[in-house]
Amino acid sequence: MLDNIVYSKYQGKIYPVNPKGGEILGIQLFRSIEEIDGDVDLATICIPARFVFNAVQELATKNCKFLSIITSGFSEIGDIEEEEKIVRFAHENGMRVLGPNIFGIYSTKSPVNATFGAKDIEPGHVAIVTQSGALGVAMIGKTETEGIGLSAIVSVGNKSDIDEADLIEYLMNDELTKVVLLYIEGIKEGEKLIRILRKATKIKPIIIIKSGRSKRGALAAASHTGSLAGEDNVFSDIMNQVGALRALSVQEALDWAKFLSIQLRLPKGENAVIVTNGGGIGVLATDACEMYKVNLYDDQDVLKEIFGPVTPSFGSTKNPVDITGGASNDFYEQALQAAIDSEDIHSIICLGCETAIFDCDQLSAVVQKKFIEAKPTKPLVFSFFGGSDFERGLFSLKSLGVPIFPDVYQAVSCLGAVYSNYRTLSYTEEFAEHKEPELNIDISTIQEVIHEVREKGRHFLLVPEAMRVMEAAGIPMPKSYVAKNIKEAIEFAEQIGYPVVMKIVSKDIIHKSDAGGVALNLENREEVIDAYEAIMNSCLSYKPDAEIQGVEIVTMIKMDEAIETIIGARIDPIFGLTVMFGLGGIYVEVLKDVAFRAVPLTWRDANEMVKQIRSYPLLLGVRGEARKDIEGCIEVVMRLSKIIQTIPDISDIEINPCLAFEQAKGVLCVDARILLTPPSIR
Amino acid sequence: MLDNIVYSKYQGKIYPVNPKGGEILGIQLFRSIEEIDGDVDLATICIPARFVFNAVQELATKNCKFLSIITSGFSEIGDIEEEEKIVRFAHENGMRVLGPNIFGIYSTKSPVNATFGAKDIEPGHVAIVTQSGALGVAMIGKTETEGIGLSAIVSVGNKSDIDEADLIEYLMNDELTKVVLLYIEGIKEGEKLIRILRKATKIKPIIIIKSGRSKRGALAAASHTGSLAGEDNVFSDIMNQVGALRALSVQEALDWAKFLSIQLRLPKGENAVIVTNGGGIGVLATDACEMYKVNLYDDQDVLKEIFGPVTPSFGSTKNPVDITGGASNDFYEQALQAAIDSEDIHSIICLGCETAIFDCDQLSAVVQKKFIEAKPTKPLVFSFFGGSDFERGLFSLKSLGVPIFPDVYQAVSCLGAVYSNYRTLSYTEEFAEHKEPELNIDISTIQEVIHEVREKGRHFLLVPEAMRVMEAAGIPMPKSYVAKNIKEAIEFAEQIGYPVVMKIVSKDIIHKSDAGGVALNLENREEVIDAYEAIMNSCLSYKPDAEIQGVEIVTMIKMDEAIETIIGARIDPIFGLTVMFGLGGIYVEVLKDVAFRAVPLTWRDANEMVKQIRSYPLLLGVRGEARKDIEGCIEVVMRLSKIIQTIPDISDIEINPCLAFEQAKGVLCVDARILLTPPSIR
Repeated sequence: MLDNIVYSKYQGKIYPVNPKGGEILGIQLFRSIEEIDGDVDLATICIPARFVFNAVQELATKNCKFLSIITSGFSEIGDIEEEEKIVRFAHENGMRVLGPNIFGIYSTKSPVNATFGAKDIEPGHVAIVTQSGALGVAMIGKTETEGIGLSAIVSVGNKSDIDEADLIEYLMNDELTKVVLLYIEGIKEGEKLIRILRKATKIKPIIIIKSGRSKRGALAAASHTGSLAGEDNVFSDIMNQVGALRALSVQEALDWAKFLSIQLRLPKGENAVIVTNGGGIGVLATDACEMYKVNLYDDQDVLKEIFGPVTPSFGSTKNPVDITGGASNDFYEQALQAAIDSEDIHSIICLGCETAIFDCDQLSAVVQKKFIEAKPTKPLVFSFFGGSDFERGLFSLKSLGVPIFPDVYQAVSCLGAVYSNYRTLSYTEEFAEHKEPELNIDISTIQEVIHEVREKGRHFLLVPEAMRVMEAAGIPMPKSYVAKNIKEAIEFAEQIGYPVVMKIVSKDIIHKSDAGGVALNLENREEVIDAYEAIMNSCLSYKPDAEIQGVEIVTMIKMDEAIETIIGARIDPIFGLTVMFGLGGIYVEVLKDVAFRAVPLTWRDANEMVKQIRSYPLLLGVRGEARKDIEGCIEVVMRLSKIIQTIPDISDIEINPCLAFEQAKGVLCVDARILLTPPSIR
Repeated sequence: MLDNIVYSKYQGKIYPVNPKGGEILGIQLFRSIEEIDGDVDLATICIPARFVFNAVQELATKNCKFLSIITSGFSEIGDIEEEEKIVRFAHENGMRVLGPNIFGIYSTKSPVNATFGAKDIEPGHVAIVTQSGALGVAMIGKTETEGIGLSAIVSVGNKSDIDEADLIEYLMNDELTKVVLLYIEGIKEGEKLIRILRKATKIKPIIIIKSGRSKRGALAAASHTGSLAGEDNVFSDIMNQVGALRALSVQEALDWAKFLSIQLRLPKGENAVIVTNGGGIGVLATDACEMYKVNLYDDQDVLKEIFGPVTPSFGSTKNPVDITGGASNDFYEQALQAAIDSEDIHSIICLGCETAIFDCDQLSAVVQKKFIEAKPTKPLVFSFFGGSDFERGLFSLKSLGVPIFPDVYQAVSCLGAVYSNYRTLSYTEEFAEHKEPELNIDISTIQEVIHEVREKGRHFLLVPEAMRVMEAAGIPMPKSYVAKNIKEAIEFAEQIGYPVVMKIVSKDIIHKSDAGGVALNLENREEVIDAYEAIMNSCLSYKPDAEIQGVEIVTMIKMDEAIETIIGARIDPIFGLTVMFGLGGIYVEVLKDVAFRAVPLTWRDANEMVKQIRSYPLLLGVRGEARKDIEGCIEVVMRLSKIIQTIPDISDIEINPCLAFEQAKGVLCVDARILLTPPSIR
């Protein structure tokens, strides 16, 4: 470690400490921290675990600000206490802790390489934050192989204090860093991470690899790191919401990091074009565009205008633009030039299969030149396919930063990452001009209900209590009143809105239908009058001595005109406040067709959330059915998110079913389950 | 082309023909085909399209057997007629046609390189058949770069005669060829391809890249090749059924081809183990195993027994087996040896992150040695991750055939391909011992119905006709009889099975319910007697002069106890005879949750088909509901497949809904739509 620090040309003073004294690498060792003749900025601790706390105490006397505890043998093997003791002491004495159980920290800015990884680290613009030590150390070498320079690499290990979120908060404002790459296995403070990511992704691209996507992988990660992975689909949805770019594999993440650190200008729009000398790889790239959400430009007339003059007659100006297997370097040059010059094309995918026609050096020159020309205005990615000589020549351009790949999927994946980032930023811009509707929620009534429930020693709400909360939250419920006479019956029916159901209310009449005590689907005032009289007459002749309290007037629910949705909000143990939307019943249970978002969320987030579910077409109406009240669903999502955000006492609300009727006919919360936060948590 | 043929050391005679005469490459040219002084085995034709037919006619006089027509400008630009004329003439004269619009054919066996691709082709054991010329030519170079030797590469172009299926039929018995790789864009004769693949995949692995997975990609492929892609999910399901390995990208296909051509021994079972020095990549590989259907061995006791002695105390013997970042080459050697020696482990994924501990040369030696030792008994794949020097050393092993990759997903994907192949073959073995149940179908009655329908000039069946077909097919339908008296009513009810519904049959009574002419859910003989009398009395008092034909006795369908499925069989324009299964209604319409198989299919195929749908848990029973009659559904699938296979007159049968009741309570075909083949087609 000392060798690395010295080699990295650290400009400050270096105080190596070892009780044995003597000399390492020609530097005099201090026998103790006490001997150090000045303040300490960063202490890198690599002594056995049992001595660490003592060293930390001594460092406090040197006004030390940061501890980088390399040492293993703390919470990761179960010794949570010692780790917590160190962090507590550090905080009381103005120190922050990185680790323990890490390989250290490297920063180009300082510069300092206080890691036990490679000595030589290529400086550059990608910052890596990694939970895995082994992968992190290996990534130092790997990034160099890939031609990716680093602005920083930091190992977070047990995250006893400093975690990914803290580091992103720093890195998002670090000028040297253009892209941040995170490798995460388990999450300790999801809410904090989400909060920081929301800001950071607006400033620079944040790429995340999170392993533990599969059930078994999540278990392996948990046993390996002691932190929890959380539900993978919730994580994915939220990363998407906050604009972080989630890569599948390490290779994909590195490809994105490199491309995004070079291609800093975003495209001006969504129109991508494929230029190819082979129909086959053009089709493969078209498939890849769908997979990575890259939108292929489709205006045939404009495409013909742009590419007609530079496409051989037996080629095609449709997108993919096929300049044919007979295309020489000149054809590529012209087609790419046409794409670069056109205002209608916003990004370019250039593909090539090796043919006898190419002069590899000339083609390389064209590729490099066009990449540089395109760079200021539009992303341009390449995929070429052929033998060693052909690939060797072309892929040597990688070291110059040209995004060129052997597989079309790799190339398109990079462009997909750029577009994902583009959408995050253009949404932010759009949103700045947009005013979100206000939602009136009667918070004090809800708090009153909660107070009553707490008083009774319960932490769940009974149905009438939950209904009171729903009412105060402005979420429509079936209404119900008891009328004592015809006048009241009419009043209540009109208040509820037709159609209504009427039911006898009498403790003496159990089987209401048998007694003629129920009337369904009453559409107007006259029907209510008739039904009231009919009910009274039947019930009195059924049981002449019955004591009748009145007639209940209830909203008539037409289940067959509605779609059941499930809408919820909860405190997720990993990700904090979240909302959930899905279609009810088996869609949730069997098909897991639900979408999640972190709170707070915008109306647009809620909108996208509803659209995201696979069964969304059911809300739009299939088989000639009417479109359902999607806006009503979105409003309920927003109301629940506001409640869970405003009232810390509520830990869980689930409306199931929330019926969605025809558009503009609203939604209806038929049942709601509300849980209160155990007092120990909040 | 001549240069390539000569260079490839073709052992036969070469007759270059050109009307100008003279000499090329020191070989005397023939001025015409006529001048050739012997018979011709293979003619490679590269003259303008308008001269081709003439040349083919002349070649017939030389007893030519095979034509490889390089020339473009036939059906791919719309000139179908000329192409058909050539093929017709060729067939009449005992010639087969490859192409036109191809780059030629290369075969190691002959040897001959009659292509206009690279001169130097590395001989080996992978045969490539490609529809794309550009990609094919480039693949010659690419495979060499990847260290893959070829036994053949054949361009099929317009597939006017010889297509992929013909070539697979040859290659599956070719000793030199160990793996076949197909690149397909569009399919002309799907049924033939499927038939050949069924056989070929039992003999050697067949890898398929089919572009046009996406909607837009399929359109691009169609416009580019003039052949149709077919529904991608149908293609995928059928490839899976017949045991072909479908790769996503060209790179993946090449990785598989290389690995499968080296790793000829299949694993002995499904137990895979991950050995790693980093927890992080271990988790990534675990995720990858789920994605590629590699089953991680789970017996903790056995794992401990195998790996305990070779795992450091702070490592883990759980799977992934973590030999820790402190693991030297020796640890790898021991852990791999333990895995190789164990009878309980059937395949191995070995992972490594670069650490300071490794000696790269020694590690390379260990990797190579263990790969060779494992090869005869179990597949072993590697993924190592680190800097240039580290990777350079290790990845040089690729040229020796060691399956070693920078990304864990790549390594696991290869093992997934092996397991897919393993399952195909072990299924075949298992199947050989299994006897399929016989299905009795009354073919002659069905043909009688069809005859009647044809007589009436229709090509679709009316409901009663379809019901007769269903009955003859042994598919349960709601039954219905008209009883003239109580005795008959009881007889019919008992024949149908309780519960039954009874309805008045009278042209004078339209509103049966109003007249008291309907009785539901009759559970036994007494209820039938009561209901018969009640119906008669009510109806006669409702309309005393009504003329009553009798009382209809019908199966009582309890919709709320059933799940709606949709089961169909049809002649797919691309893939031939296929069957389909899905849950009814919106599952099919909105969620596209359906599975397909080619006919003929085994009971096990049908079983897997039913299990494949995402909503399968609904059939198993959710929310405490009973398991549905899955066996009944499978039987209906098998019956429909038999009908569509046996009766060429039927082009389309769809049962929608086919109700599935509780297990052993059977299924019920409520409605069936049957279409007849237009006489022009069959």
